[in-house]
Amino acid sequence: MSRIAARRRVTRLTAGTRSTQRVDFLAVEEPLEIRVLGKSLAVTMRSPGYDVELAAGFLVSEGVIHAAEHFTTARYCAGATADEGNTYNVLDITLAPGVAPPDPSLARNFTTTSACGLCGKASIEAVHTQTQFTVEDDPLSIDASTLISFPDTLRAEQAIFERTGGLHAAALFDGATGEMLVLREDVGRHNAVDKVVGWALMRDLLPARSCVLMVSGRASFELTQKALMAGIPMLSAVSAPSSLAADLAEEAGLTLVGFLRGDSMVIYSRPDRITNLGEDADPEQGPALVREKAGQP
Amino acid sequence: MSRIAARRRVTRLTAGTRSTQRVDFLAVEEPLEIRVLGKSLAVTMRSPGYDVELAAGFLVSEGVIHAAEHFTTARYCAGATADEGNTYNVLDITLAPGVAPPDPSLARNFTTTSACGLCGKASIEAVHTQTQFTVEDDPLSIDASTLISFPDTLRAEQAIFERTGGLHAAALFDGATGEMLVLREDVGRHNAVDKVVGWALMRDLLPARSCVLMVSGRASFELTQKALMAGIPMLSAVSAPSSLAADLAEEAGLTLVGFLRGDSMVIYSRPDRITNLGEDADPEQGPALVREKAGQP
Repeated sequence: MSRIAARRRVTRLTAGTRSTQRVDFLAVEEPLEIRVLGKSLAVTMRSPGYDVELAAGFLVSEGVIHAAEHFTTARYCAGATADEGNTYNVLDITLAPGVAPPDPSLARNFTTTSACGLCGKASIEAVHTQTQFTVEDDPLSIDASTLISFPDTLRAEQAIFERTGGLHAAALFDGATGEMLVLREDVGRHNAVDKVVGWALMRDLLPARSCVLMVSGRASFELTQKALMAGIPMLSAVSAPSSLAADLAEEAGLTLVGFLRGDSMVIYSRPDRITNLGEDADPEQGPALVREKAGQP
Repeated sequence: MSRIAARRRVTRLTAGTRSTQRVDFLAVEEPLEIRVLGKSLAVTMRSPGYDVELAAGFLVSEGVIHAAEHFTTARYCAGATADEGNTYNVLDITLAPGVAPPDPSLARNFTTTSACGLCGKASIEAVHTQTQFTVEDDPLSIDASTLISFPDTLRAEQAIFERTGGLHAAALFDGATGEMLVLREDVGRHNAVDKVVGWALMRDLLPARSCVLMVSGRASFELTQKALMAGIPMLSAVSAPSSLAADLAEEAGLTLVGFLRGDSMVIYSRPDRITNLGEDADPEQGPALVREKAGQP
């Protein structure tokens, strides 16, 4: 049985037809325990695969590491039970000498709070306290038509989604060329983003300057925070952002795009990074974006 | 400004038209810290509103309480900062005498693990250890056509989604009458489910026998666990379940339905609770489901 998609016998019913028994593929979900120096830090329910990237990206999101050199080894913990052997669900990370191990309480409640002052503003401030990178001055400039092509690229590459319908996707695009650098799928969208960030960390690409993080679903505060922790200046989502995601993006100078689907988008912050927005469109000629899509000069 | 939907100035672009500035409504996301007897248990990013239900449902999901009488008071913690006053983002719960307060480590890592034996099976066993209710023998019986009507009811009642596009929904339906008992929306789908479960707890309706929990997105292990902790015998989802959700449902005797949209569905476990599946459909007459939908005898 695959570790990514699992077969299960199901009953399928469409009104007006007989119900049928068949075998379907389901997205595999399994727990992963992330340990640092043997100490349990978190358990996340994830799609198996790219676990080292997931753990690395998680540690970036939590502000523990931000460069490849901070991370020395990752080792699956061998099974404690004689019959099961290694479940490949416990990963122990060794940090480089001098890198402070995470505070377990911090990792679980990133949104640190003092007394009863917990509010969105405090959550935003906590991100600023944690991050090593700033995206405000990132020179990313991307054509609107390039951005509009990202969801199709994402979907075309989502191999497991096609079989199971059960996965979120996150991808990193090079803003200058429009090329997709990496795509990861996971039952949890925060995991998909952590895997992408971990991929970039391990290639020493952080901060991921002039890159765009594209996600298949909504843009929450958490995903915006992850983009910022990785130094990514733009987050685009197929669906809606939350108010706090938009506020964090605005405050940090990150370009946040939502409802990026079909031939349209909504820009919540820093629209100056997106070119050919159509402001100069000439109704007689037809606007720039349409001409480009049709391959005309 | 509303606590549920917030206005933000955005730039909207559709290919072939000029970009426009306008005001959009975004789903509000704010942190909520749940405390028990003054001690911080968890911080969740949620849509404000129904916070007491959210906290109560969270405590049911974590196995801390399972009856209205276990829960005595809920109090917003007054602001520690002079200028901000009460943020309404910190809720302190008092448990009834004799109810054991939660183990903080348990609350954060429900999927308890012994050494390296962490696996899906262990996660499933952890649910069985925690739950007070069994759903295996629940006599719920529901007509397929009733079930097919649930997504439309859900969407029709999703008031905030219509404005913001940014919310997940969860609803509890009475399986006998098909009536929707409660619907809650939230930026986090686990929160939407916790709010529904908390609603039921506070009315002393747990275990929610013969009820159906309907969710707008996918069915993860976590949501299936929440249904079981509340004694709900059926979970139906608009999108796909994960393998571990299906395994937990199968093992616990919960009916799990996915891809419930349009006029079809896929049943992953215990299909015996769904009637008029069409097995006896007579091609000459047209199947039962079609006739019922058309209002014919």
